[in-house]
Amino acid sequence: MVTNHQVLFNKVQPTGLPKPGETTTRGSAELDLDNVPLNGGILTRNIAVSLDPTMRNRMKGDIGYFTPPYEVGKPVTAIGIGEVVRSEVDGFAAGDIVYAWSIGIEEYTIHPAAAAAGFRKFDPAQLSNGLSITTYLGAAGMAGMTAYMSLKEIVGDLKAGNKMFVSGAAGAVGQLVVQLCHQAGVKVIASAGSDEKCEFVKSLGADESINYKTEDLKAKLKAFAGDTGIHYYFDNVGGDQLEAYIANAARYGIIVACGYISGYNAEKPEDVVYPKNLFNIVTKEIKYQGFIVSSFIPKWIGQFMHEVPKMLAEGKIKNREDVTFGVYGAEDAFLRLFTGENNGKVAVLIDTERAEKWNLGKQMQSAKVWK
Amino acid sequence: MVTNHQVLFNKVQPTGLPKPGETTTRGSAELDLDNVPLNGGILTRNIAVSLDPTMRNRMKGDIGYFTPPYEVGKPVTAIGIGEVVRSEVDGFAAGDIVYAWSIGIEEYTIHPAAAAAGFRKFDPAQLSNGLSITTYLGAAGMAGMTAYMSLKEIVGDLKAGNKMFVSGAAGAVGQLVVQLCHQAGVKVIASAGSDEKCEFVKSLGADESINYKTEDLKAKLKAFAGDTGIHYYFDNVGGDQLEAYIANAARYGIIVACGYISGYNAEKPEDVVYPKNLFNIVTKEIKYQGFIVSSFIPKWIGQFMHEVPKMLAEGKIKNREDVTFGVYGAEDAFLRLFTGENNGKVAVLIDTERAEKWNLGKQMQSAKVWK
Repeated sequence: MVTNHQVLFNKVQPTGLPKPGETTTRGSAELDLDNVPLNGGILTRNIAVSLDPTMRNRMKGDIGYFTPPYEVGKPVTAIGIGEVVRSEVDGFAAGDIVYAWSIGIEEYTIHPAAAAAGFRKFDPAQLSNGLSITTYLGAAGMAGMTAYMSLKEIVGDLKAGNKMFVSGAAGAVGQLVVQLCHQAGVKVIASAGSDEKCEFVKSLGADESINYKTEDLKAKLKAFAGDTGIHYYFDNVGGDQLEAYIANAARYGIIVACGYISGYNAEKPEDVVYPKNLFNIVTKEIKYQGFIVSSFIPKWIGQFMHEVPKMLAEGKIKNREDVTFGVYGAEDAFLRLFTGENNGKVAVLIDTERAEKWNLGKQMQSAKVWK
Repeated sequence: MVTNHQVLFNKVQPTGLPKPGETTTRGSAELDLDNVPLNGGILTRNIAVSLDPTMRNRMKGDIGYFTPPYEVGKPVTAIGIGEVVRSEVDGFAAGDIVYAWSIGIEEYTIHPAAAAAGFRKFDPAQLSNGLSITTYLGAAGMAGMTAYMSLKEIVGDLKAGNKMFVSGAAGAVGQLVVQLCHQAGVKVIASAGSDEKCEFVKSLGADESINYKTEDLKAKLKAFAGDTGIHYYFDNVGGDQLEAYIANAARYGIIVACGYISGYNAEKPEDVVYPKNLFNIVTKEIKYQGFIVSSFIPKWIGQFMHEVPKMLAEGKIKNREDVTFGVYGAEDAFLRLFTGENNGKVAVLIDTERAEKWNLGKQMQSAKVWK
């Protein structure tokens, strides 16, 4: 028998910031690894999970979100990497490392057979390039795919000399967008919530930065737009920044709509800011397109895995991570996504023993670490 | 010498409905057709002009609109058809019929040489198919191009069995969208501002209609959406109808953003309604794309002129027109675009003598006529 430490979803919370201890609670359950019934499913020992802003929307009850709401009393789930302990699904066996959409924030998860259909086997040989396992949850994982694939699919060819505005630029996805655009010769203006983060995004290649909490967003965007307007906007936040982009968009501007973080934790629906200049979508012939990365994975995963991990390993793309150790730390780490205390891609390392096999030392050097 | 009757732009009016006699006034000027200096330009005798909601935005002063504001004291200009009286531009000669973006609402216009670069010669042989000249300003002109080309470019292949919502469906563009979609096997729900217009759009092939002034828009769209959601939205109006579409959109929904009429005549900026559910652009992976038809004309004009006038002549597409006789009638006709009193495509026949050569009789039978 082992004790399975867990972060449980405790209370539907439609508004405001998530509250550790209330929205979620810490729990544990005894588990007999050898004999617990799997009912045709898979038991994983969980190594690491990714925490993403989108998870906030699953804590609001049934709001018609594209992923189902969390169930009270059950572990919060996230994208993660685990090792198969036992499997009753063909094609998976003990010792396999798997990348899954629904790893519980707990040390062990029993996945139903249907969930295993979405598993992707993870080849530990990929780690021989020196990348750490959490990088495969971030820049070489979903965050990286989100940046890479949405630019490929919605913008197409990034044109050198064109201008891009990236909001949430120090976050998991934003930092990659900044670098991919910079490498393509696109001029980048990037917004973030602190001076330190602004310095960071400039170190990644942003030509200019905006601390949206202290600087005049509209004036800086207008100056950056100059006579040409701004050709692209990678929108992680919506609200005022979306409106400011539309006001400064070039004709045929393209908005890659990735998230609307500014609205996720509003206390009241009327607190959420929506742009009041949508008529310019018509007059500037703007394309404003939303996406969920899973729609693009089948088409782009091969090219992505061929290019991006190599670029990361060679240092051609940088990747800042914010790693918390241990299951229970996930509660505070999730809150930090919204307070802005996080630094880069937020992940939780659940199983340091397994992680040690895969470049944990390097991880410790390059990430901001919370214990 | 002739007397050139004119509708002059009289007063910048940022808000509210246009006011005949105040926003615009009636005027006249004596003109020596043989000797007036053209300074390298072209003199046209104007046959007919198209009145379009977009013109309202040029009466607001410099709001950064894509076409320049009207100048106080000068004639209001519109898309129209005229006959060349004298030309100092190579390639144009007296007697040529031309289609132009900037015909004055007046009997004669002197066009600078630069404006003539945008003229398209109109072959009167096109009228041998029985279409009237104003149809070449509507269904076979810019309104038709707007419907046809935006569907081609933004939606691509209309998929039989998919669902489309069209707002402003009894208007110049909407009535063609309804028919093109119906012919492609798309199920159509169409909104308009009176029961009579709703009957009209159903006669064109709309499966369902919504009188947005008296019926429950959200409930009707939700019922129409059913389990599949609504795949396409052709948006002429913005505001509440745009929000209601987003709420009922299918995954990968497409919004063809043609206009935002609901906001054009607001008394105060805060009276304009903007959708409060843009996060669904992300979660439903919606593409919301604006366009101005002139961007698409070079690519699609050949195919359009090959297909659409023929379909109109053969009765495969119907086209309801609202024709006013005489320059001065343009003031009230323009107002009717926004009060909803118009019936279909609004045009002003300036020169009945010329129009008589081109199917005026047929015109009189098929159009609602204002004198």
